[in-house]
Amino acid sequence: MTEKPIVLISSPLEEEHVARIRAAAGDRVQVVHEPDLLPKPRYIADHKGAPRTLTPEILNRWSALLAKADILFDFDLIDPANMPRNAPKLRWVQATSSGIGEFLKKTGLDKSAITFTTAAGVHSRALAEFSMLGLLYFFRDVPFLNRRKQEKHWERYTVRGLAGSRVLVIGLGAVGRACARDAALFGMDVWGLSRTPGPAPEGVSRVIVKSELREALSQIDALILACPLTAETEGMIGRTEIAALKPGAVLVNVARGAVIDEKALAEALQSGHISGAALDPFTVEPLPKESPLWELPNVIVSPHSASTVAAENGRIVDIFLDNLDRFLSGRPMRNKFEPARGY
Amino acid sequence: MTEKPIVLISSPLEEEHVARIRAAAGDRVQVVHEPDLLPKPRYIADHKGAPRTLTPEILNRWSALLAKADILFDFDLIDPANMPRNAPKLRWVQATSSGIGEFLKKTGLDKSAITFTTAAGVHSRALAEFSMLGLLYFFRDVPFLNRRKQEKHWERYTVRGLAGSRVLVIGLGAVGRACARDAALFGMDVWGLSRTPGPAPEGVSRVIVKSELREALSQIDALILACPLTAETEGMIGRTEIAALKPGAVLVNVARGAVIDEKALAEALQSGHISGAALDPFTVEPLPKESPLWELPNVIVSPHSASTVAAENGRIVDIFLDNLDRFLSGRPMRNKFEPARGY
Repeated sequence: MTEKPIVLISSPLEEEHVARIRAAAGDRVQVVHEPDLLPKPRYIADHKGAPRTLTPEILNRWSALLAKADILFDFDLIDPANMPRNAPKLRWVQATSSGIGEFLKKTGLDKSAITFTTAAGVHSRALAEFSMLGLLYFFRDVPFLNRRKQEKHWERYTVRGLAGSRVLVIGLGAVGRACARDAALFGMDVWGLSRTPGPAPEGVSRVIVKSELREALSQIDALILACPLTAETEGMIGRTEIAALKPGAVLVNVARGAVIDEKALAEALQSGHISGAALDPFTVEPLPKESPLWELPNVIVSPHSASTVAAENGRIVDIFLDNLDRFLSGRPMRNKFEPARGY
Repeated sequence: MTEKPIVLISSPLEEEHVARIRAAAGDRVQVVHEPDLLPKPRYIADHKGAPRTLTPEILNRWSALLAKADILFDFDLIDPANMPRNAPKLRWVQATSSGIGEFLKKTGLDKSAITFTTAAGVHSRALAEFSMLGLLYFFRDVPFLNRRKQEKHWERYTVRGLAGSRVLVIGLGAVGRACARDAALFGMDVWGLSRTPGPAPEGVSRVIVKSELREALSQIDALILACPLTAETEGMIGRTEIAALKPGAVLVNVARGAVIDEKALAEALQSGHISGAALDPFTVEPLPKESPLWELPNVIVSPHSASTVAAENGRIVDIFLDNLDRFLSGRPMRNKFEPARGY
């Protein structure tokens, strides 16, 4: 008689979601959830939790649980880099984030034999909403309207419509495809940059590859960064690419901060070469107080929360339960992280 | 031999559009465009023009043109109420606005024998863009983000997503239908209120009539006003209706100011009962300096410009040329104003 695999819930998760996992898993696995060993969530779908003092009791009890776990729902928050040593039975971790490549590389976990599955797809609608907000906000120049509002100054003006403008979406994964679809439905001409050439997804009129980027940048009114951070995309939008952008273009970043040269970006925003930017991720988070981005009126600073919607954990549990079936029956996992490509 | 009908361009219109009218009309009509008799546009698609001094010469020359005109492209800006007397041959006016009912009633023109056609449909995409901006801006609480930005305060938060929320669109004409379609594509449950029951347009899950309004208001997360201003819709959203709204609801007005009780609206915004409002039209325009709406942080004050995009005049000319064919061949006109229904 083999023992049941143990699933350990490793980051804050609302009781309703844990109950759903227990119900769906039935007697196939043992679900361990000890909320008093986990940090308290500060908001719905907070996966890190509030700062806390780790008592010896918490550390001891948590170590004992880790030692027996076969499956983790989210990374061990206390000492993620040493999961292979502290959880020797561990075979699979379901992440609650979509972009884990940078983290796995930094912790060396990408070299381990553990299977990691991401939350890719969960955040695509919320990030597409943020992207459309960014485009509409700067195309219609809400900062300008708000300045006029402070002066109680009424004067009609001509707005820039999305319809008839062109946007380039970098990265055509779940998030990029959702952005492309929305932009096309608003009547934009949508170009997409993909790592590998292939058929154009819904709404995309032209797929380009990296070598065509420079030339494309001069022909677009907006740029959405929606790619994973990999060796290939790190610094992809550097000073030269920013300079190549059509003057007045609007930028949205829902990828990772390091995809773009943040210093060159701030300068382009200051000069108006880029007319506005809606930014969710930053190279260093929290964004340091010294960053000029805080003070620029043509920037939305979103504290890496654009994908955090109340429905998020339900969708992550959907993926986890699908993957649990796959794991137990030996079928290929969904959203499996591939170290070779970096996502 | 009958004389050719005379088309008089009566409000600022860019030369390229006039040239297009001339080319399409051929020798069927005589197109009269004397820009020096018209005010100068202050922005693209400005139909009113900058203030100017009317010299006796301008008035005399303009009167002579009016006296011979059969068709006007836009209302006579100088003395619209007396068009029937000053332009005795006038049979048709193509308006550059969609909502002309209030204006025709005020001037008594609704009683004249002149045919009026509106620009309905021209503004629907631009107004749907404004509506989606309004929803995204307040659902994601950009004013809150901007306050935190001023404090350089980084703290993650859970955003309210459009997906899974419910919106009621009042008015299912071209603008309302465009808003409904967009909201549905963002994953919202869309209800619509129509003057007359009928099949649900694209994206609308439930069509209600006015008697069901009060009950519906308590079940929606957002309300978009997109109806014409008529005797029926004036004051439709009064103090009682606002009180019936689900707390925290977001409001967008792309209809006319008088559809909603502006004083009750300001109070509901102040208390937070309505969490935010994106307003394009106002009861009195320009919005008076005394209006509390100027000072409320949870309001976008758009100076009745949400539909003013650079492409606007081209689209109005499309309608005009279609109607010119209809007029000359005696077919029913498009967008014909019906005094009985008020739009």
